Amino acid sequence: MSTSTLINQQYRLAARPIGMPKPEDWHFTTEPVRDIVDGEVLVKTLYLSLDPAMRGWMNEGKSYIRPVAIEEVMRAGGIGKVVASKSAKFAVGDMVSGGLGVQTYWTGAADDKTAALYKVDPAMAPLPKYLNALGMPGMTAYFGLLEVGQPKAGETVVVSGAAGAVGQTVGQVAKHMGCRVVGIAGGKEKCDFVVNELGFDACIDYKSGALREGLKEHCPKGVDVYFDNVGGDILDTVLTRINLKARIVICGAISQYNNTTPVKGPANYLSLLVNRARMEGIVVFDYADRYHKGVAAMAQWMQEGTFKTREDIVVGIEKFPQTLLMLFNGGNFGKLVLQVAEE
Amino acid sequence: MSTSTLINQQYRLAARPIGMPKPEDWHFTTEPVRDIVDGEVLVKTLYLSLDPAMRGWMNEGKSYIRPVAIEEVMRAGGIGKVVASKSAKFAVGDMVSGGLGVQTYWTGAADDKTAALYKVDPAMAPLPKYLNALGMPGMTAYFGLLEVGQPKAGETVVVSGAAGAVGQTVGQVAKHMGCRVVGIAGGKEKCDFVVNELGFDACIDYKSGALREGLKEHCPKGVDVYFDNVGGDILDTVLTRINLKARIVICGAISQYNNTTPVKGPANYLSLLVNRARMEGIVVFDYADRYHKGVAAMAQWMQEGTFKTREDIVVGIEKFPQTLLMLFNGGNFGKLVLQVAEE
Repeated sequence: MSTSTLINQQYRLAARPIGMPKPEDWHFTTEPVRDIVDGEVLVKTLYLSLDPAMRGWMNEGKSYIRPVAIEEVMRAGGIGKVVASKSAKFAVGDMVSGGLGVQTYWTGAADDKTAALYKVDPAMAPLPKYLNALGMPGMTAYFGLLEVGQPKAGETVVVSGAAGAVGQTVGQVAKHMGCRVVGIAGGKEKCDFVVNELGFDACIDYKSGALREGLKEHCPKGVDVYFDNVGGDILDTVLTRINLKARIVICGAISQYNNTTPVKGPANYLSLLVNRARMEGIVVFDYADRYHKGVAAMAQWMQEGTFKTREDIVVGIEKFPQTLLMLFNGGNFGKLVLQVAEE
Repeated sequence: MSTSTLINQQYRLAARPIGMPKPEDWHFTTEPVRDIVDGEVLVKTLYLSLDPAMRGWMNEGKSYIRPVAIEEVMRAGGIGKVVASKSAKFAVGDMVSGGLGVQTYWTGAADDKTAALYKVDPAMAPLPKYLNALGMPGMTAYFGLLEVGQPKAGETVVVSGAAGAVGQTVGQVAKHMGCRVVGIAGGKEKCDFVVNELGFDACIDYKSGALREGLKEHCPKGVDVYFDNVGGDILDTVLTRINLKARIVICGAISQYNNTTPVKGPANYLSLLVNRARMEGIVVFDYADRYHKGVAAMAQWMQEGTFKTREDIVVGIEKFPQTLLMLFNGGNFGKLVLQVAEE
């Protein structure tokens, strides 16, 4: 196909936000899609994954991945369709997952290390699932829980952000391991969802202000594994209920990402000492060579009907800025996905 | 011997302090030493160990050990001499270590679980060493470093409270493991001591206000293991310098024990995430069945001349309150010991 008439719409980072990002922190730009050369592919973006980690990528400074540069296309994972190919690796029509960025087309070498494209099978699961349990959030949850949390059957696992992309999977994987699973989420609707739809044993609505009492009631034997996506007061409160040799998986701290004041450190961290407990960070990329095992396990459970996911799909690349902000005010319900084009 | 004429001098907990303890938080009391019955021994206290943990024992509430009750003799470990025995376990003249309490005589069953008396050999090392490297601080350091910190040869180990009882041993054990060892201590004299006498590679005087620069200079390859005895700002600063997969051993937080405001949590704890690092607590009692291995290893090094310790010995049980407070203002230099009687 000729690509010369295609226009690429892009969101580029315009400024490093202080506190909560605002729409002006990105520029919306357009440019013609260039022709591909040997070894390259052209991918049409269908779905983009909107993740809390994206807030961190907007900051300057050392982290587990380099910051997005000013005027660079905003980094994002996504699912797209190969619409032109001069590579044997992908054929036109293939569905691929990778670092497409917030843009309507991605052009580059089929084996580009940064984009790290790989084929996904739309027959095995609907495409948005590949941005959820079968994608980065799912891999984060699966390996973070099993490798760092190391839950044993009969133990109590607590997960915050329970209705979010990572939390949904953490809870369901823990149920498959034979654990008691208690979620923490904001609002009755999300709590009902993870209990009634996903099979969590209980869920505490932190917005009710009764987190401490909820933990006492629903974790009568204490907390063995806490998978933390939120940080702040919730982390501090859970620290008061942990058991001897508890494992706390530090996956994120969404409550702190837009702080303009310093991060609130866990004042109750000495509970780690009293309980000989452990707090450990997880970054999903460390498990890249084993993603296929996580995908296979969860796809199997999905086919058996014992593993469900929920996506919150917003349509239209022009809605990128305000949709991303939903993550930070609890506005999304399930894995947040931006649909950029029809399949 | 008749014990009926002996007088036991005791410090009993009078009040639960808020913030820094003061002398009025204990009562000084005297009572006649009672005669022992079958199975019991009478121990004359020679040396008492003064430790930061004692501050925590004065607080109400759940911890790794029950609080000292109001009007109970203040808990303390010590070394004493058996002066009367109706037990086959100990003979008159034996030197013993155990939970004697802040009193001049201890009376009880030879196999009392709480006191947990065991014989020490004055021929192998001077008695105060059994409250230092060959006692609880040494065991805390030895097992905390090796089991939780898991240092490997060539790695960089940083320890705070470097001139203190635990810190001295952590650093020297790490040197024996082939690590680069950097201490953090308050004042030039302590820093010179751990470098020149104990063989640390470097020591940073935190009172100079140049901790961050010191870490950059002396840990050019970053920090692999941080053994934290102090908490607060020092913990936060070290967190900015840790390496991938670093291990942070939480042994204590002496900067926070007398807080009347909430404990300062480590604001930089998300460095654990970025670096996939671990923060884990250690309580020495968990390793009780292996103390003999730690004692044997360090006694051997002492005999070889490759392991030294320093004690700061204050004489007179009546000095107990003000001596304990030295721990919290950095007044002691080496393991703080209260000598209660002549050997």
